[in-house]
Amino acid sequence: MNYLNNKELKDVKVISKSEYPSKSVPKAKITKDLSSLIKELGLNDGAVLSFHHHLRNGDKVLNLVMKEVQKAGIKGITLVASSLFPAHEELIPLLEDGTIENIVTSYISGGLGKAISHGKLKGHIIMQSHGGRARSILNEEIKIDAAFIASPSADKMGNISGVNGINSCGTLGYAIADGLKAKKVIAVTDSLLEYPNYPADITEDYVDHVLMVESIGLKEGIVSGTTKVTKDPIGLKIAKDTLKVMEATGLLKDGISFQSGAGGISLAVTSYLRDYMIENNIKGSFASGGITGYLTDMLEEGLFTSLFDVQCFDLKAIESLKKNPNHLRMSGSLYGNPEVSSVVDNLDIVILGATEIDTDFNVNVTTGSDGVLMGGSGGHQDTAAGSKVSIIVSKLFSSRIPFIKDRVDVITTPGSTIDILVTERGICVNPLRQDLIEKFNEANLKIVDIKELKEYAEKIMGEPKTIEKGERIIGLSEYRDGSIIDYIYEVKE
Amino acid sequence: MNYLNNKELKDVKVISKSEYPSKSVPKAKITKDLSSLIKELGLNDGAVLSFHHHLRNGDKVLNLVMKEVQKAGIKGITLVASSLFPAHEELIPLLEDGTIENIVTSYISGGLGKAISHGKLKGHIIMQSHGGRARSILNEEIKIDAAFIASPSADKMGNISGVNGINSCGTLGYAIADGLKAKKVIAVTDSLLEYPNYPADITEDYVDHVLMVESIGLKEGIVSGTTKVTKDPIGLKIAKDTLKVMEATGLLKDGISFQSGAGGISLAVTSYLRDYMIENNIKGSFASGGITGYLTDMLEEGLFTSLFDVQCFDLKAIESLKKNPNHLRMSGSLYGNPEVSSVVDNLDIVILGATEIDTDFNVNVTTGSDGVLMGGSGGHQDTAAGSKVSIIVSKLFSSRIPFIKDRVDVITTPGSTIDILVTERGICVNPLRQDLIEKFNEANLKIVDIKELKEYAEKIMGEPKTIEKGERIIGLSEYRDGSIIDYIYEVKE
Repeated sequence: MNYLNNKELKDVKVISKSEYPSKSVPKAKITKDLSSLIKELGLNDGAVLSFHHHLRNGDKVLNLVMKEVQKAGIKGITLVASSLFPAHEELIPLLEDGTIENIVTSYISGGLGKAISHGKLKGHIIMQSHGGRARSILNEEIKIDAAFIASPSADKMGNISGVNGINSCGTLGYAIADGLKAKKVIAVTDSLLEYPNYPADITEDYVDHVLMVESIGLKEGIVSGTTKVTKDPIGLKIAKDTLKVMEATGLLKDGISFQSGAGGISLAVTSYLRDYMIENNIKGSFASGGITGYLTDMLEEGLFTSLFDVQCFDLKAIESLKKNPNHLRMSGSLYGNPEVSSVVDNLDIVILGATEIDTDFNVNVTTGSDGVLMGGSGGHQDTAAGSKVSIIVSKLFSSRIPFIKDRVDVITTPGSTIDILVTERGICVNPLRQDLIEKFNEANLKIVDIKELKEYAEKIMGEPKTIEKGERIIGLSEYRDGSIIDYIYEVKE
Repeated sequence: MNYLNNKELKDVKVISKSEYPSKSVPKAKITKDLSSLIKELGLNDGAVLSFHHHLRNGDKVLNLVMKEVQKAGIKGITLVASSLFPAHEELIPLLEDGTIENIVTSYISGGLGKAISHGKLKGHIIMQSHGGRARSILNEEIKIDAAFIASPSADKMGNISGVNGINSCGTLGYAIADGLKAKKVIAVTDSLLEYPNYPADITEDYVDHVLMVESIGLKEGIVSGTTKVTKDPIGLKIAKDTLKVMEATGLLKDGISFQSGAGGISLAVTSYLRDYMIENNIKGSFASGGITGYLTDMLEEGLFTSLFDVQCFDLKAIESLKKNPNHLRMSGSLYGNPEVSSVVDNLDIVILGATEIDTDFNVNVTTGSDGVLMGGSGGHQDTAAGSKVSIIVSKLFSSRIPFIKDRVDVITTPGSTIDILVTERGICVNPLRQDLIEKFNEANLKIVDIKELKEYAEKIMGEPKTIEKGERIIGLSEYRDGSIIDYIYEVKE
């Protein structure tokens, strides 16, 4: 619109009748031929391809597309996958032959993680938080050439809905940034529905192609073994103590906002919180994050006024999203992008798990006790930073693996944002939170020094073996703001 | 993420414990002080400020903000207002003193348009379509420094909802591009609601400030005099003939998609279409555009499966948007942005008005018979181009003003996209549409040559007087794709 600066408009060219536009026609977007589509996209060596993980371990789209990329002989791909699951271990040969050179993800489990830890990726792996992923895509630190969006349903123009179709997986929160920013957006679907397909998570104005495939996966694969309340009495004790801790923070009152992970103890906390809220007639504000049936029940009971759902963790959550107008979709950016105003910053309490924690309260959920990649931040960093109070719940003694260390293997979430640790052998409070320590003292809640708890555990279990690491740094643990908080080392096989 | 290209990661800096992030806290966004806010925004001379028009003639935000900009002594503003109404004629002094230098809009009526036609704007006025507006903002042809978004409701973090609050005006479709792209986004509201305010048209991640004001306007102002079915027998005859035309196109069948303007004859067509669909048991697909109660009734009766609503035209539409999940919000880009896949491209039939038409079927809805600015494309260009069949409905004889000319005063919509004209004295078909002419012949529908219809009208009314234009070109009629299709001249007072 440079002509705004022209002093005179008479020199601006007005098109003549012969140049008049014809009627516009909708672009044909549908294809069944992935191989031709990859050619049409003009992907070069080193291209950046993105995928979301809302079908979790049930996803088939990532393998399908990447194997076709391999066939096309394109090398050096940077794979930007919001999470990777055991189902994706079919991609190991693609690391070895250089099809996939770098991986950027927020969570990785299964054989693929193991292979990467054992040095099979020629480039690097960058572990981000969910909010950090959205940040890096939206601020164009990562430039996606093509986003292949597993779409439970789409219409011929590419309106994508996560609640319609045979593999409806609910909200598509992690794919929103990709849809907004990728140079080319491909809806990959096994359910082509009548135009207009709605409610659309991603609308046609952002979609370039609709790729019909036989199957995008299996929606049942979204349910992992951990999305049930624990039955283990030690886990239940920890959950009960966590509720006491929450009460002592003074935040258990009308208007509370809450998030918990989908681990067994976290869900037990949610369950006890429900009882507490009913008993004390507390009406909460919102619950957020990955959403389970436990939270949709609480929504229906009026214990929360709304849910911010970035990812449906079970089939009940999907049903609720379909029918309850107070069950809201949330993008990864709205969830936890640190460069904008996000929901985590309005969160009172978050309940999180940990693989290990250190005496500085740094948490590792990225690697296992053997140093092998088996998880990642997901929303861990985001909610720990944003919440008024972040609480780690974990057993101190679990399968003979030490839980508290001097230094965690990989720092996923910096201790400066972790406030409380609740174990079956005591509650620790981060010394940075003197305000909480005072409150807990007032409430006669016993606090243990985290160093003492560590010594106690070691007395019983012995000192932890050191993990045998290789020399090579294979990846980085990125903080949500883009700074690097730790190296990830190769592990000897 | 340059470290993806590093051969070695050991040189990447890992932050030390002393640099660890502290817990993040929500940014304080609320202010009641517009004057300080304008200083804080750091607006310079020549800044680009944007506004939406969903409150139509009831809007108070534009005047309020611009007068404060004037007080701050900032000059040379480019005002990007999606539409301007009689309520905005208070801004005339700001044209005269150079506060506002350029205007980019899709519709202008009232005293402000008159003042601009009489040469009071020091810079230029650019008339866009609704889709063209979205295009130019999203592709950054227009770079907005600050978007002041009149918000029927907002919470402290800036979640904006158009259906909550005392001045709920419904969907905020035209403000979405501004929210996505403006350097600073300000929610201006008179209804501060509890966090989280939902359903949000624009979420907090896009909002920088929440400005509390006494009143954003009067929602009743959205209803203009034209949003009722005409009672004029001539208008009703035209509507009845239009239905016959629609039938002859072969498009009146299951799956039909439809849009009509909110003028009296257009609404009469909608009303006859309703009867026809009931009688013939036709189930339509979607209706789109500015939405009225006539269409929400048809949605509830199952005559359409969904509505794409870019703007609520009456209070009934707002109520429907609140409660009916098949009544969908649509952004200006999804509506008609020609650079993406948009809803207009899937439209079967659109019914449009015209101030005048010429023998090439070019339509003017920008200026009146006196050459003075009194309208604009709105969605006219977009739907004419996108629809399978675009139909202009108008009286041939209306208040002694000639309707068909050799050349319209200002080309708003090029004749190459206008298919049919229906008047009380005959139906004309664009010669480009031989397919329609054949169909109408088969249906024994009488067609008149538009030149003959013009001659007939002139025989009765005499030849039109030429408008007395000045020398100066004050603005441009922009086509939706950004090309310029006509000049707009100054008119002598």
